[in-house]
Amino acid sequence: MAEQLAPLEVIERTRRGEPVDGPSVESFVRSWIDGTSADSLIAAWCMAACLTGLGREQVEALTRTLIASGDRLELGSLGPTGDVQTTGGVGDTTPLVAAPLAAALGVRVATMSGRGLGHCGGAIDKLEAIPGFDADLPLARFVRQVRDVGIAVISQTARLTPAGRRLEALRDATGTTPAAGLVAASVMSRAIAGGAGAIALEVTAGHGAHIADPETARETAALMADLAVPWGRRMRWIVSGMDAPRGRCVGNALEVGEAGEVLRGAGPDDVRELATRLAGDLAEAAGVVEAGEGRAAAARALRDGRALASAERWVEAQGGAAAVWSDPGALPTAPVRVDVLAPHDGWVAAIPARGIGEVARWLGAGRLHSDQSIDPVAGVEIVARVGDRVAVGDPIAVIHARDDWAGERAREMAAEWITVAEEPIERPPLVLGEGGGDAGAS
Amino acid sequence: MAEQLAPLEVIERTRRGEPVDGPSVESFVRSWIDGTSADSLIAAWCMAACLTGLGREQVEALTRTLIASGDRLELGSLGPTGDVQTTGGVGDTTPLVAAPLAAALGVRVATMSGRGLGHCGGAIDKLEAIPGFDADLPLARFVRQVRDVGIAVISQTARLTPAGRRLEALRDATGTTPAAGLVAASVMSRAIAGGAGAIALEVTAGHGAHIADPETARETAALMADLAVPWGRRMRWIVSGMDAPRGRCVGNALEVGEAGEVLRGAGPDDVRELATRLAGDLAEAAGVVEAGEGRAAAARALRDGRALASAERWVEAQGGAAAVWSDPGALPTAPVRVDVLAPHDGWVAAIPARGIGEVARWLGAGRLHSDQSIDPVAGVEIVARVGDRVAVGDPIAVIHARDDWAGERAREMAAEWITVAEEPIERPPLVLGEGGGDAGAS
Repeated sequence: MAEQLAPLEVIERTRRGEPVDGPSVESFVRSWIDGTSADSLIAAWCMAACLTGLGREQVEALTRTLIASGDRLELGSLGPTGDVQTTGGVGDTTPLVAAPLAAALGVRVATMSGRGLGHCGGAIDKLEAIPGFDADLPLARFVRQVRDVGIAVISQTARLTPAGRRLEALRDATGTTPAAGLVAASVMSRAIAGGAGAIALEVTAGHGAHIADPETARETAALMADLAVPWGRRMRWIVSGMDAPRGRCVGNALEVGEAGEVLRGAGPDDVRELATRLAGDLAEAAGVVEAGEGRAAAARALRDGRALASAERWVEAQGGAAAVWSDPGALPTAPVRVDVLAPHDGWVAAIPARGIGEVARWLGAGRLHSDQSIDPVAGVEIVARVGDRVAVGDPIAVIHARDDWAGERAREMAAEWITVAEEPIERPPLVLGEGGGDAGAS
Repeated sequence: MAEQLAPLEVIERTRRGEPVDGPSVESFVRSWIDGTSADSLIAAWCMAACLTGLGREQVEALTRTLIASGDRLELGSLGPTGDVQTTGGVGDTTPLVAAPLAAALGVRVATMSGRGLGHCGGAIDKLEAIPGFDADLPLARFVRQVRDVGIAVISQTARLTPAGRRLEALRDATGTTPAAGLVAASVMSRAIAGGAGAIALEVTAGHGAHIADPETARETAALMADLAVPWGRRMRWIVSGMDAPRGRCVGNALEVGEAGEVLRGAGPDDVRELATRLAGDLAEAAGVVEAGEGRAAAARALRDGRALASAERWVEAQGGAAAVWSDPGALPTAPVRVDVLAPHDGWVAAIPARGIGEVARWLGAGRLHSDQSIDPVAGVEIVARVGDRVAVGDPIAVIHARDDWAGERAREMAAEWITVAEEPIERPPLVLGEGGGDAGAS
């Protein structure tokens, strides 16, 4: 039967974990875009998707429908273009480094990015911590900047995947962000409508990510690569562990500062390693370096200052203070800092990314309802990482807060999440999977 | 900490299956009642409740909040009052019989009932199939009729638990009906606000009920009895099996006809058995018969015509055609009937209540969106019940439809659900549990 299911039937079948055909999902989502179905129906469906999952056909249909809700760029005439995307995480500074690093290798980087979702930060909120930075460029200026400067990162516009933006806002407001299928459709519709020919994707997995299970994350990454194929995109992906926050900083200005450290060749190992891989992979997929040489080329560009120069050109082109990457004093800072201390001697056993993300969100680094403004200086700095040896009274983390009350309250919350073990603890692996997909290859 | 969780935190914790304290649930639901939180938040929370469940403290808080959203009757001055409630099912004619039967035993029956939810019918939709029947009495008239006639059954009014009515409509529209905790709060807030001193409750369990698992149904029934205690109500409950439809009829006018058969001392065994138990238990809880004698007294009242006379007085008082109980010709009938035939010799193995409920709903006996009107004559009549021996070509069910197209389409749908086995099949048990709760007893 070619007949499509009614919206209510789509929701009920998803709730029961039963299959739903693609055209019925498309018709349901369209009915919401058109205003025929209320937000409450999509919210219920998204929650069911969080708890029972969506099948491949449904994710494909949702992606198609989100892309079709607006315009779609084609950047082929600009030369080798690339996009860096992530499914989001806590303290995930990687894309802030990978984008200018790929640009330094010759990829024209064109990225539309999102704001924070749930307890996870968003690249746009982070970039807006840079004084003067304008993430809301008109599309024509976005394209011009990609051509002339070689890199532009903007917030989702109303012209490209407007329904995707509405859907993210609704998921954020209704606590329905962590569904692998919804994350996949959201990120891939944005990347495809953005028009870059190559895509480097970080899919985070763990208790602090929107997708907890590594196997689900790998399957989702492979599905996302498949979604790109019919649109002629070349894609590379990495699944990274997100049980603890990435790097040492969680919070918008803090993370910009950390990205600056990495762009200067220093900073935390994990951020540098992932950014090098993503930028190198993107350079290979975009065809600006030979296969197998991307990562080494990226490591060189970090060491010799080309990545930093690329990042400075980029931020300046978008009106921001380019000094932020090399001068921490150019970033706003919090008036209050409170140490979270080790309760006893031992090894740091867990710094749960979700918990730290929630603390940062509570401090103002993220939103608890969608019209909340962000406090750029709020956040948590991790001083001792998982596996580190600590003595009683050593600081494990530092709360960055607006005032003493918030700082003390956040310290208590963070102290409840962080655990110190009596026995040595091994640091969990950073990379949990990698792969790629080429147009025509599958 | 006495501080309450933000609405988003309530949703996220429920999604993760983590406990939420009562005051936070109360504050969340109030924010929705006040219009501060959008429907989409409650819809997402209800879907999470369907899939992860609600704890006791949360159900208690929701029940309290729904009761507090409107007025609350106290019927103590009317003598021994009672209420018959059900969590709903497919073809569940029992309350239509139990209510006038309890009235015949001397209980003053005061019931507020609901409309169909999902694939399950509602008593009010069934009563409105009676020509002239008015289910929307003003509260003062409701109380007067309970006092003067001894029985009144009305639709939920805007004055009692208005938020409960809004919540049921939202759950119906968003496919979020089958959550045990939501069902419990919805039914019990209605019963408590309705003011009767004794409550007889049927909790249905099975693939056709809002609660599938019998153990969950028994736990929910016990929780519902506990919810009534602080309000000084005496309660008795039965958990009944709802894998196949109750009785032989699914559809509004069809079920009124079936209730009439039972009130005349005939009709299907299962409806008669459950109605006798519920009415007898209610009479005991209300104190109008001795403990242990209610069911025998109820059986006598069915045989000697007192139940029928009570039902006639009741319907007449609400403006309906009292003849419906004894004259099937007084009810509207469908112009088209189509037989669903046995595909081969054997024993009827499954007549899934949910499937038959969906067929009846599709035909117009229920709603697929909340502003749909009901077709009182549409429905499905079960001719051969689970366990019955059939020969190829024997009718198993009869579709009652508006026209040939709908009848044929519904026949195909029903035929897909019904199965006939090669081996004899045992009929599943009717009663899966019973219990009670008295004010002061727990």
